[in-house]
Amino acid sequence: MAMLAASRRLSCRLNTGTPTLLVGILQSAYGRSISTAFREEKDTFGPIRVPSDRLWGAQTQRSLQNFDIGGEREQMPEPIIRAFGILKKCAAKVNMEYGLDPHIGQAIIEAAQEVAEGKLNDHFPLVIWQTGSGTQSNMMPMRLVIANRAAEILGHKRGEKFVHPNDHVNRSQSSNDTFPTVMHIAAALEIDKILIPALSGLHSTLHGKSHEFQEIIKIGRTHTQDVQYGIRRVLDTLPRLYQLAQGGTAVGTGLNTKKGFDVKIAAAVAEETELPFVTAENKFEALAAHDAFIETSGALNTVSASLMKIANDIRLLGSGPRCGLGELILPENEPGSSIMPGKVNPTQCEALTMVCAQVMGNHVAITIGGSNGHFELNVYKPLIASNLIRSVRLLGDASSSFEKNCVRGIQANCQRISKLLNESLMLVTSLNPKIGYDKAAAVAKKAHKEGTTLKDAALGLEVLTAQEFDELVVPEKMIGPSD
Amino acid sequence: MAMLAASRRLSCRLNTGTPTLLVGILQSAYGRSISTAFREEKDTFGPIRVPSDRLWGAQTQRSLQNFDIGGEREQMPEPIIRAFGILKKCAAKVNMEYGLDPHIGQAIIEAAQEVAEGKLNDHFPLVIWQTGSGTQSNMMPMRLVIANRAAEILGHKRGEKFVHPNDHVNRSQSSNDTFPTVMHIAAALEIDKILIPALSGLHSTLHGKSHEFQEIIKIGRTHTQDVQYGIRRVLDTLPRLYQLAQGGTAVGTGLNTKKGFDVKIAAAVAEETELPFVTAENKFEALAAHDAFIETSGALNTVSASLMKIANDIRLLGSGPRCGLGELILPENEPGSSIMPGKVNPTQCEALTMVCAQVMGNHVAITIGGSNGHFELNVYKPLIASNLIRSVRLLGDASSSFEKNCVRGIQANCQRISKLLNESLMLVTSLNPKIGYDKAAAVAKKAHKEGTTLKDAALGLEVLTAQEFDELVVPEKMIGPSD
Amino acid sequence: MAMLAASRRLSCRLNTGTPTLLVGILQSAYGRSISTAFREEKDTFGPIRVPSDRLWGAQTQRSLQNFDIGGEREQMPEPIIRAFGILKKCAAKVNMEYGLDPHIGQAIIEAAQEVAEGKLNDHFPLVIWQTGSGTQSNMMPMRLVIANRAAEILGHKRGEKFVHPNDHVNRSQSSNDTFPTVMHIAAALEIDKILIPALSGLHSTLHGKSHEFQEIIKIGRTHTQDVQYGIRRVLDTLPRLYQLAQGGTAVGTGLNTKKGFDVKIAAAVAEETELPFVTAENKFEALAAHDAFIETSGALNTVSASLMKIANDIRLLGSGPRCGLGELILPENEPGSSIMPGKVNPTQCEALTMVCAQVMGNHVAITIGGSNGHFELNVYKPLIASNLIRSVRLLGDASSSFEKNCVRGIQANCQRISKLLNESLMLVTSLNPKIGYDKAAAVAKKAHKEGTTLKDAALGLEVLTAQEFDELVVPEKMIGPSD
Amino acid sequence: MAMLAASRRLSCRLNTGTPTLLVGILQSAYGRSISTAFREEKDTFGPIRVPSDRLWGAQTQRSLQNFDIGGEREQMPEPIIRAFGILKKCAAKVNMEYGLDPHIGQAIIEAAQEVAEGKLNDHFPLVIWQTGSGTQSNMMPMRLVIANRAAEILGHKRGEKFVHPNDHVNRSQSSNDTFPTVMHIAAALEIDKILIPALSGLHSTLHGKSHEFQEIIKIGRTHTQDVQYGIRRVLDTLPRLYQLAQGGTAVGTGLNTKKGFDVKIAAAVAEETELPFVTAENKFEALAAHDAFIETSGALNTVSASLMKIANDIRLLGSGPRCGLGELILPENEPGSSIMPGKVNPTQCEALTMVCAQVMGNHVAITIGGSNGHFELNVYKPLIASNLIRSVRLLGDASSSFEKNCVRGIQANCQRISKLLNESLMLVTSLNPKIGYDKAAAVAKKAHKEGTTLKDAALGLEVLTAQEFDELVVPEKMIGPSD
Repeated sequence: MAMLAASRRLSCRLNTGTPTLLVGILQSAYGRSISTAFREEKDTFGPIRVPSDRLWGAQTQRSLQNFDIGGEREQMPEPIIRAFGILKKCAAKVNMEYGLDPHIGQAIIEAAQEVAEGKLNDHFPLVIWQTGSGTQSNMMPMRLVIANRAAEILGHKRGEKFVHPNDHVNRSQSSNDTFPTVMHIAAALEIDKILIPALSGLHSTLHGKSHEFQEIIKIGRTHTQDVQYGIRRVLDTLPRLYQLAQGGTAVGTGLNTKKGFDVKIAAAVAEETELPFVTAENKFEALAAHDAFIETSGALNTVSASLMKIANDIRLLGSGPRCGLGELILPENEPGSSIMPGKVNPTQCEALTMVCAQVMGNHVAITIGGSNGHFELNVYKPLIASNLIRSVRLLGDASSSFEKNCVRGIQANCQRISKLLNESLMLVTSLNPKIGYDKAAAVAKKAHKEGTTLKDAALGLEVLTAQEFDELVVPEKMIGPSD
Repeated sequence: MAMLAASRRLSCRLNTGTPTLLVGILQSAYGRSISTAFREEKDTFGPIRVPSDRLWGAQTQRSLQNFDIGGEREQMPEPIIRAFGILKKCAAKVNMEYGLDPHIGQAIIEAAQEVAEGKLNDHFPLVIWQTGSGTQSNMMPMRLVIANRAAEILGHKRGEKFVHPNDHVNRSQSSNDTFPTVMHIAAALEIDKILIPALSGLHSTLHGKSHEFQEIIKIGRTHTQDVQYGIRRVLDTLPRLYQLAQGGTAVGTGLNTKKGFDVKIAAAVAEETELPFVTAENKFEALAAHDAFIETSGALNTVSASLMKIANDIRLLGSGPRCGLGELILPENEPGSSIMPGKVNPTQCEALTMVCAQVMGNHVAITIGGSNGHFELNVYKPLIASNLIRSVRLLGDASSSFEKNCVRGIQANCQRISKLLNESLMLVTSLNPKIGYDKAAAVAKKAHKEGTTLKDAALGLEVLTAQEFDELVVPEKMIGPSD
Repeated sequence: MAMLAASRRLSCRLNTGTPTLLVGILQSAYGRSISTAFREEKDTFGPIRVPSDRLWGAQTQRSLQNFDIGGEREQMPEPIIRAFGILKKCAAKVNMEYGLDPHIGQAIIEAAQEVAEGKLNDHFPLVIWQTGSGTQSNMMPMRLVIANRAAEILGHKRGEKFVHPNDHVNRSQSSNDTFPTVMHIAAALEIDKILIPALSGLHSTLHGKSHEFQEIIKIGRTHTQDVQYGIRRVLDTLPRLYQLAQGGTAVGTGLNTKKGFDVKIAAAVAEETELPFVTAENKFEALAAHDAFIETSGALNTVSASLMKIANDIRLLGSGPRCGLGELILPENEPGSSIMPGKVNPTQCEALTMVCAQVMGNHVAITIGGSNGHFELNVYKPLIASNLIRSVRLLGDASSSFEKNCVRGIQANCQRISKLLNESLMLVTSLNPKIGYDKAAAVAKKAHKEGTTLKDAALGLEVLTAQEFDELVVPEKMIGPSD
Repeated sequence: MAMLAASRRLSCRLNTGTPTLLVGILQSAYGRSISTAFREEKDTFGPIRVPSDRLWGAQTQRSLQNFDIGGEREQMPEPIIRAFGILKKCAAKVNMEYGLDPHIGQAIIEAAQEVAEGKLNDHFPLVIWQTGSGTQSNMMPMRLVIANRAAEILGHKRGEKFVHPNDHVNRSQSSNDTFPTVMHIAAALEIDKILIPALSGLHSTLHGKSHEFQEIIKIGRTHTQDVQYGIRRVLDTLPRLYQLAQGGTAVGTGLNTKKGFDVKIAAAVAEETELPFVTAENKFEALAAHDAFIETSGALNTVSASLMKIANDIRLLGSGPRCGLGELILPENEPGSSIMPGKVNPTQCEALTMVCAQVMGNHVAITIGGSNGHFELNVYKPLIASNLIRSVRLLGDASSSFEKNCVRGIQANCQRISKLLNESLMLVTSLNPKIGYDKAAAVAKKAHKEGTTLKDAALGLEVLTAQEFDELVVPEKMIGPSD
């Protein structure tokens, strides 16, 4: 009884309110780029004026006016727009196999390719804060822009519907399966193109530093592993991101598509992106939940915790110049405070830790959105997608920046490290096996209280001879278990 | 011993690495708006090429290259830029009282006014993910842009330092007290101009609906209060947001300012913005912590929880058309699914609940950033400021949109409400005082099991006569305590 | 049409499944304290065996078996149980004014007083993870325990219903208004008795340290204010916590109570607790939402961010003994590592920061629970209440512990502070007004590069004479603005 | 230069403050179970009185007094105590291979076995809120309790140190590697024994329902997959949880252990627990970070989002009895409201969703704690461990309870489902392929406006004949793609 489901999205009734064209609002929201000439478009609500140099249609225009939330800065992220282009191109290819007029199909492919390359970005003005299914991005600008552009390519006018937005462009696709498909394509591509290379670069530089400082300081040793595990954690979540909802149509049944459409479209996307996308095992789950995004976001959250620790450690070890720990020397990239010339700040560490805090916050937003789905459709899709994509990009870019502008140029302050080592009371631990815990404690306490060396304290307490002490306390022997 | 403090920000040493000009990166990050002509600027690191149609200087250029994180979309929010303009204007006014050349002072005021009006937005390209003190926004574009623009106003060339960025524009100001001041100005203005009016509008419309539906349904009654409390909660946090750090300079001591500068500058900002800003009681706290932002964000978090409930209630009560609760009729603003014509979705509710989830996530990011400050300087300032400002804007805009496009047009479905009321078993509670809990339970259970009315069940169990039943079960009497 | 509401809690139908007595489960969950003798109790589901030395009834027994989640450790927090006692005592008092038999009323008061004093804790075994309205705690153990105990006081047997759990003990009360009332009483009392005194003590000790170290170090100056603001933030939220839902009955209408009952019961609770409780302005809101708890939790979240910073600052300033910053000397309360005798750790700071992280996590849980209410009843009440009460207790206790075992005993390491001060390059800032920013920067850079003093560098660059330098660089003058 | 590290935990100096015995505090915190007789114990701080029937020593006694935070309810979770027992047993076995006196070793094994079985729980009173390394649990009660108990087994007195707590019980172990090892053992066991079986049971019941309702309703189909994926997500994180830190000693170097100790101890734990534990690839990482816990918590967070959706769906579909959706009939386990007899609530759904919200909050606490580690030692270990263990237990128990008391007894309300289906406008989608989108939209709109059937509307608009309509609109055909 699956078809019942579609009616269960918590929807509302008709009334007769007709919003008038709010040119003023539009202008303030879209500032200087607004065009002054308009053409008339029509939908089931009646006619509406649309800027004539824009490819979108009546419904996008309505959405712009109905969701005047946050301004340009809150537009749907570009990777989503581009992934739509990829998908529509693939859909046209597959639809041609199922009988779509090849003339029209080819024009759609060309138009979609322009979308995938970011050439038509200006024609997708809708913000994240729209319908929770992301429907408006599919229904409205996307199918229309591609239809209009494809018609142009074929020598027809905008708004003529020579290439029909539903019957041609969106053929065999529902917004309900299209938007989640696009979310997955966009997220997987950003992870593949931005995050993984950036983390790999950071790992490799940390690994290099770990060798460079092998004899001196151990910081690299821990951190190289942290980053390596982080990469593995993100990769582990990809199998579920690679599952595409396309072919499930409205509620996962596949109603109004053809048999095999789902498998073919996933294969086409895989070929196009060179990533191993497959059709989702269960289309119902793929529309109703976004656990795959919560899971991937969880991996990013773990990576953020690792990176926050790494950046803090480097910041603390590099603190100074004269009053901090000063074991590391960080590269100076820019002048510091306007009131204290000569001061240089660990700004790359700060940028990275801020990014980590943001990713942790985004993770909570994704979790809340992901857990609040009902029935056949989660209606927090744009929230979930935009936060994940932002987290991926920020973590990727910040890791690259940190690698290039900080880690790569770190030097060890050997003089300082050596000074701190020799003053340390920690060497007392090597007395344990010989004189036992209680006496060793007494030695350390005495040295500490009197501000002397451990040797002086040990001799003062007469627990060891000088020779015994020297044989026992050998820093080089303290870096591993005994035979 | 306060001055020691400045050295304790966990800073790093000099080295000799000199980053080269990465024009490629710059171009990809700033796309079509990049200029091709350059002038040479110089700082303590040496010469660097800067786009000749941009007012920023060498250090901004370095920052752009060193913090290539997230692209244009991640630029410092516009309200921050504008608040900088307000502050610099006020600082020039006050500095003129302390001897700044009035000719120069006046030019700074004019240039700063242009910043405050958003006319120079293109000259502030730095992203959020920079130094955690926000220093680079003050040090770099801001003082330079204003100095360069002021010099232009006086007929001089860019880069000549006729108006000196430090000695004139930033006089008596440290980045450390300037950025937190700007954070407070920006946040308070956004709350005042966007959030409070939007919440007040929503409250007023809910209040109106509450009267309109007085006889029918009680939803408005709860929700009008929720929103009213929400407004009060936000307003309650403002006294601490109105405290400005300016005058504390680097670590809160006020070193390198004049006595009284702090009070005068707060007064000037108050006059300029018509908001009751005052100088912070304790400048050390004002630089080192941003508890005021965590507190305000906490109020926004509470408001989000309220609004999420309101939107969900309306969404559920408006669910249908035929298979949901259907007690409310929501306005139809746009067509629904491409596969199911006739379906209309509660999209405004969805946009608002997504915004609420985002605000909750932002709150976690702010809390993490706010709790990780050390010593005299919290270095998560841009993170904290940008999240709060985003939350304010999104909540404000989404509340307005929800009010205008949803609440205002809601109608009660009286027929449906009446049908559900008469079927309800809940009326049995009015039998309690007469026949006691145990017998009333038996009546309800019988009616429930047999699918009959309560009256039939009561008569069947012979606990009441028909007349007694009719006298007891009067819905109109069930809406309040008895006398 | 308010009464419709009651039916809208998302409830379910009857079926005939009858759970059998799972003695095994019960025994494992309640370990050694389980009794072996049973009496038979009865409810609308039929008979069930209850441990004969326990005062609870059939429904509690069912709930124990139906919600076997987490074991004893997850039982409803004691302050909730005690607040129930306070409320039932007050309800009996007020009900006597409305005609409750004084004999029975007095016995209820005595029984409730025992609950309020924690004497009957063993009789309230239900866990947090029960019905989301908290109903089971009111319906089940509470009314029964009090009824049974009151009957005992009057010389009757358990299970006889001489004192009737509904008609007498719960008279004029619904679970729906009772549980939120109890939440508010418990939270307000814990804040009043534990948190505020603890924060005040911490504030006072920090304030003392601020005076003690006045000449030396400024840490106290910031932190005393942070804590003071924290106290104010918590107190600011109390007016909304002091509003009680009691009198709203099932959905806020007050159905089945008497006029004035709500005001009288709030007054009785206020008298009993000596806290300014009042009846809620809007009973619908008081049942349907728990924004007051989210708000108070937000204040605790802000306090946690403050305390985390304070504890981290003290931890870092006290780091050492020989390789850290070492400006503060922390009291040693216990020995450190078993492998490194002589090492002492900032354990109080660690306990406090862990508590702060927990409070931040609890805040997210409360926010999620608080935002997910629907219609007339939020069904996350036990979650919300238990997290807030835990946060209050942990923050209070940890602040006290931190004050007593750490802050009180902190000493300044004057020798170390002085050494760091004299080495600091930060003093260069006092040259700014005389030689300008660019030259001062050059001095600091030279000193830094060559490892010399600022004076040597300044003389080397010939920007100042020795005498001029000495007149300018006077640390004592650097702690405030110039005249 | 690894051994330097130990001194870098942000530790503090000695002073001379000696806390006095606070019997009062102790008594209030540990209520009736406090003993009145004392023996005197001694540590490096001097003598202290310890309850004579407790096995712990001087340092535990100090910790109890120094960390009086939260009371009994906040004690270290039992699974941690038991895992300590397992580890100490295994350590004794391995130490015997390295020369530990077999007589003493055997006694330690016996004593540790008692701990592992929970028999000595009363002897571990320390709360979570202690030192952030968890040291006190290892140093204090654990080694002492086992030493004292082992000595008893050998016929010696408590406090005699016949079995030495450091030289015998804690041999080759540091608190720094012991506590993380115990965290991993405890978490892995709880997941294996409680969570996975509970989720598997839930999955299997949902799967059964999915078959049972195959012809009727599709809810099971989505949810069975959600749970299956959830199990897989948790299992995917286990390889990193199975890595044990033991053998790294204080900072990961393995100083003061023997070669091979790390591998042997992991093997012994694996044998004891029948779980595939191995020694950590990198001991430094294993002490310094707890990314494995953040990762596992992330998986639990994802599972919570899934379960929250499942519980909400069931709650909504089961809403009624007469005014909700009513497609499912939920089992009735207990009576509902005291004011509305006959009402039954979806209490299992509510308990489960509350648990999910708690797990999400715990996840934030774990993330904050996990990201705030510094250098060689994360000092939020007890926070991290206790939250994860609580999340595992609550999710496991709540899933079992939900399965047993809710899902298992759900019935489909076929009559209601069928009624809603026939009223649905959603069937119009099957007209799309024949008459196109625009005309189908018109049909639905007409039916909707006039309250008629789709067929009447279609005939009214003359877009189809009655026969055509009947051939197209066949619900049975709408559950999949066409050929």
